[in-house]
Amino acid sequence: MENLEKESAVAQEYLARVAKEAEAKFDEHLPPENETPCRLHEAMRYSMFAGGKRLRPALVKATFDMFGGKGDKVWLATSALEMLHTFSLIHDDLPCIDNDDYRRGKLTNHKKFGESTAVMAGDALCVLAFELMGRAGDARAIQVLAHLLGTYGMIGGEMTDIECEGKTVDLETVDYIHYHKTAALIEAALQVGAMLAGADDKSITAIRNYGRSIGLAFQIVDDILDIVSTTEELGKDAGSDIEKGKATYPSIVGLEKSRERAHELYEESLKALEGLEGDTSILRSIAAFIITRVK
Amino acid sequence: MENLEKESAVAQEYLARVAKEAEAKFDEHLPPENETPCRLHEAMRYSMFAGGKRLRPALVKATFDMFGGKGDKVWLATSALEMLHTFSLIHDDLPCIDNDDYRRGKLTNHKKFGESTAVMAGDALCVLAFELMGRAGDARAIQVLAHLLGTYGMIGGEMTDIECEGKTVDLETVDYIHYHKTAALIEAALQVGAMLAGADDKSITAIRNYGRSIGLAFQIVDDILDIVSTTEELGKDAGSDIEKGKATYPSIVGLEKSRERAHELYEESLKALEGLEGDTSILRSIAAFIITRVK
Repeated sequence: MENLEKESAVAQEYLARVAKEAEAKFDEHLPPENETPCRLHEAMRYSMFAGGKRLRPALVKATFDMFGGKGDKVWLATSALEMLHTFSLIHDDLPCIDNDDYRRGKLTNHKKFGESTAVMAGDALCVLAFELMGRAGDARAIQVLAHLLGTYGMIGGEMTDIECEGKTVDLETVDYIHYHKTAALIEAALQVGAMLAGADDKSITAIRNYGRSIGLAFQIVDDILDIVSTTEELGKDAGSDIEKGKATYPSIVGLEKSRERAHELYEESLKALEGLEGDTSILRSIAAFIITRVK
Repeated sequence: MENLEKESAVAQEYLARVAKEAEAKFDEHLPPENETPCRLHEAMRYSMFAGGKRLRPALVKATFDMFGGKGDKVWLATSALEMLHTFSLIHDDLPCIDNDDYRRGKLTNHKKFGESTAVMAGDALCVLAFELMGRAGDARAIQVLAHLLGTYGMIGGEMTDIECEGKTVDLETVDYIHYHKTAALIEAALQVGAMLAGADDKSITAIRNYGRSIGLAFQIVDDILDIVSTTEELGKDAGSDIEKGKATYPSIVGLEKSRERAHELYEESLKALEGLEGDTSILRSIAAFIITRVK
């Protein structure tokens, strides 16, 4: 456990370092608030700069560097991945979906700017992400990213999550939802970084397996934190999963077994990295961070 | 005028022919309704097969052929452009935006499937469009398309359209809205077809100028039809622009001057095509169709 915490500290230092540089690039890539349509640009920036760990940009950067990627194009992809993540959060928070008032301790986009602007801000972030990916110049990476984002990936998971609210579901369904709504985009981030760096297919398969494991672990830990944390610690409503009748890991197998599963997935993620060339230390530390994080 | 109608008939025959083939490809490119998430896939298909002229696919195909494009990849782009158009319609119809109950004589997506599914169906069509464009393999075309779709293009126009509802606006603002919300995606369709065929920069500039003119003309004619047609003829609520206090051409310069402006734009579009190599007859006939159409 002590070792896990040491590893996690390394990851946190890495995340903070990448976040700083990635956020400077968000500012460069997002349209300015003084250009038409001003209020829409303001809404996009509001949610992009509402905080967050910037995990997906860090994953893009980590695999890009690990596979020897060169040049600035990686920052187009780090911005794109965070925009896609933010797009999904803005739309998920809408009154017709999760109806959340707070996110990361701040008013949600529609609470601050109104519903129509929030719908458009999400749409615009999604589209801008693909513009940046187009600039990065790798059409195959765009195809993979869009696939993992669509109905066979993130959006499919979100839809099923909504449909299962208040229903009794089995572990298989929760696994489906968690993999799709959370792990798919994490997998995409890792793969986009690797593809932009020119990694070979075997390496990309290993990276995807790693991503699937840490992605699932990430969502299980999220479920656990929703139960054991306070609203203040989380920056969003604690206990809201139960209130909404969300399908979660602890609701099916209990807290203890959920923790065990997260640890198993951690071990699986490290196994996926074995045999990869290049320095995997950052990815290993990020896996440790994911299962030890407290918010 | 007689000549215009002859030209328009040629365009209508072309549109019908492309629509048939493009729709067969939509069916191939859209996820099946019997795969999870079934209801979301059903909602995507519902709006994609709710009819329409399939103008954007026809524009993609016309420029692709005109510039000597070869192979099947053009059909990835025709599907993508219609998906992006449909995505914008589904979100525009939402209660928090235009709050429309009917589109093309059928219930709007959210009326049929509920709001949360409609938001997700729009999102999913947008993302799938970029997956198909990724498969088509031209990253620069993706960049151009996304730019013309984003806050400096279609979404920017929609946002300004919403913000101007019920306000007195000048002709410059209506031009801004019309260019962005309608002409930008038409321009994008033409340009994507040309780029996939490998057209040179000079040709692409000419095609963009043509697109800008017919795109503006298209929206002005839409404004006129909203006033002079019945709901039955349009398949959507006639007179709804006035009811919603939308910024339209006729509301500022009157019907007669709006018709004159549409004709001017038609002439400008033909001028833009002069000097282009290749057979421009289809594009000329489409321009004639756009200003003579009655629905």
